[in-house]
Amino acid sequence: MIVDSHAHVVAPSELYAWQGHLVANRANPDPGPPAIGDALLEETMQGHFKLMDSVGTDVQFISPRPYAMMHSMKPPKLVHAWNIFVNDLIARQAKAHPDRYRGVCGLPQTGTDPLDASVAELERCVKEHGFVGCLINPDPNEGEGPAPPGLGDEYWYPLYAKMVELDVPGLVHSASCGAPRESYTLHFINEESIAVISLLESNVFRDFPKLKIVISHGGGAIPYQIGRFRAWHFRRKKAGTFDELLRKLWYDTCLYSKESLEFLFRTVGTDRCLFGTEKPGTGSAIDPATGLWLDDVKRTIDSIGWLTETDKSRIYETNARELYPRAFLTAAGKK
Amino acid sequence: MIVDSHAHVVAPSELYAWQGHLVANRANPDPGPPAIGDALLEETMQGHFKLMDSVGTDVQFISPRPYAMMHSMKPPKLVHAWNIFVNDLIARQAKAHPDRYRGVCGLPQTGTDPLDASVAELERCVKEHGFVGCLINPDPNEGEGPAPPGLGDEYWYPLYAKMVELDVPGLVHSASCGAPRESYTLHFINEESIAVISLLESNVFRDFPKLKIVISHGGGAIPYQIGRFRAWHFRRKKAGTFDELLRKLWYDTCLYSKESLEFLFRTVGTDRCLFGTEKPGTGSAIDPATGLWLDDVKRTIDSIGWLTETDKSRIYETNARELYPRAFLTAAGKK
Repeated sequence: MIVDSHAHVVAPSELYAWQGHLVANRANPDPGPPAIGDALLEETMQGHFKLMDSVGTDVQFISPRPYAMMHSMKPPKLVHAWNIFVNDLIARQAKAHPDRYRGVCGLPQTGTDPLDASVAELERCVKEHGFVGCLINPDPNEGEGPAPPGLGDEYWYPLYAKMVELDVPGLVHSASCGAPRESYTLHFINEESIAVISLLESNVFRDFPKLKIVISHGGGAIPYQIGRFRAWHFRRKKAGTFDELLRKLWYDTCLYSKESLEFLFRTVGTDRCLFGTEKPGTGSAIDPATGLWLDDVKRTIDSIGWLTETDKSRIYETNARELYPRAFLTAAGKK
Repeated sequence: MIVDSHAHVVAPSELYAWQGHLVANRANPDPGPPAIGDALLEETMQGHFKLMDSVGTDVQFISPRPYAMMHSMKPPKLVHAWNIFVNDLIARQAKAHPDRYRGVCGLPQTGTDPLDASVAELERCVKEHGFVGCLINPDPNEGEGPAPPGLGDEYWYPLYAKMVELDVPGLVHSASCGAPRESYTLHFINEESIAVISLLESNVFRDFPKLKIVISHGGGAIPYQIGRFRAWHFRRKKAGTFDELLRKLWYDTCLYSKESLEFLFRTVGTDRCLFGTEKPGTGSAIDPATGLWLDDVKRTIDSIGWLTETDKSRIYETNARELYPRAFLTAAGKK
């Protein structure tokens, strides 16, 4: 089974028209959810399945499209309304096609506010909708104000406690970015680097030994920059090695380059990597030199000759089974 | 000849004691330069040469130690006094040992102020001290305030014009970092990623075709994250490829990991890479598993079997000769 653990919802334009309306009126009054009919939604999903089929994906874990999460918009009730509505739309898709989709929720994170609303939304999505994980945005101010403390800080502990209680992983993925020097796509990468170092220098995995965190896009800069963090680790005479620490986290394969994927697999080990494509998303571009889609990630991974069948099985399926047990429950509630 | 293009000044404690004094009194009144005698300075340099000899380095290009540049301190006259004094100390070292050192100046960058003082200091260091390049800090507010516009912005043009006029490269290297989520060492990496993308998406190399920019530490995240930027490039239907754009810049080998160095050489080409170690610096730690210094970068590069003699010659010397012509002038002013 080919499990794409990092993908985002494909929705009709009606969703984003409603987003425009919601922003324009600042959720005042709350406009209520838009009417997106079953037939239109089904047509959209069938288009998405064709894309998945074209690259051999059986199941996608779909979450809100991060750049559109609007975490930094005001007022908070707008952020809440939007994130909850998108989660509900994902739930409709996952319930309509349980053979193709699993739901991963966005959280209504706002600024540096306590995470109560996010914890409640995670619980609602898992218990009521059968979702299997959540996104975690390390910078809900989206580059335009102070971020909350790093992911190693106790600020995040209520969320981590709920994730452990529900046995769902979090995929670290920032949202948009209003900082003048960073596009959102570059902000993703920098936030992932900050997230990795903050987590690995913290007590989080001592305090939550069962916590499961996946870093998007192959871990930002950190696998490539491993040398300088090894040096800091040795110089500060910390126990073990930085390489061992790096393996406390998981990483997805949204890198769109064969050489980078090989580098990731060799650096963190195939037992810490989950297949992800975001298709359709950032990698949805054709390389004119080859005529191939950059986000046909399975084709790229399959072309890496030194990967064993066990390696590929881990990347495509078994690591996801270990990490996301709720994604593989049968109707009877068993794996 | 083994030319280490990225290294920082090794100075007696008297320098940093004077820094403490300068900060404590806010350069009010200007304390004047400290007395660091020739004998003490010579003793310090001899210690440094032993380190260079231990890893086979002939010449180091030495610049101010970035985390100590204090660009964000107030008032600006403190920043000016400190940067000018450190440059003058480097000049003393380079003049005392022209066989082992070349000077690379720090610039007295302050906040988002115009670069007049930096341009003047660059000219002074090149013309009066025979310096061969400069550091460029993309974020002189050191993570605690708004950075100037990205390096692709015309804000930087007066500096670029002077660099081209003098034919000296700039080494992109941020300084310290007061942002709560980033150590300075992680800030370096994120700032390098921002710098690469800002430069490559700008008109800088159209407007300054002879400008030479080196990105520290192997280019931050961007070589590893090349896939997503290839995709954006194709999707926006830009001319050429992102890989070609990446080769408008140079990168140094301060990565401290064999696998990362191999990745860099394969991704940007050995003709765009300059040997750098920062020894003594970030990589100055012994790996307990091997007993080797991580910043013995030449040993690591020499162990990469697929590099040809031409590749190694480029990395160790000839790229530096091309990029830093002033570093190889004879006493008669010829190469």
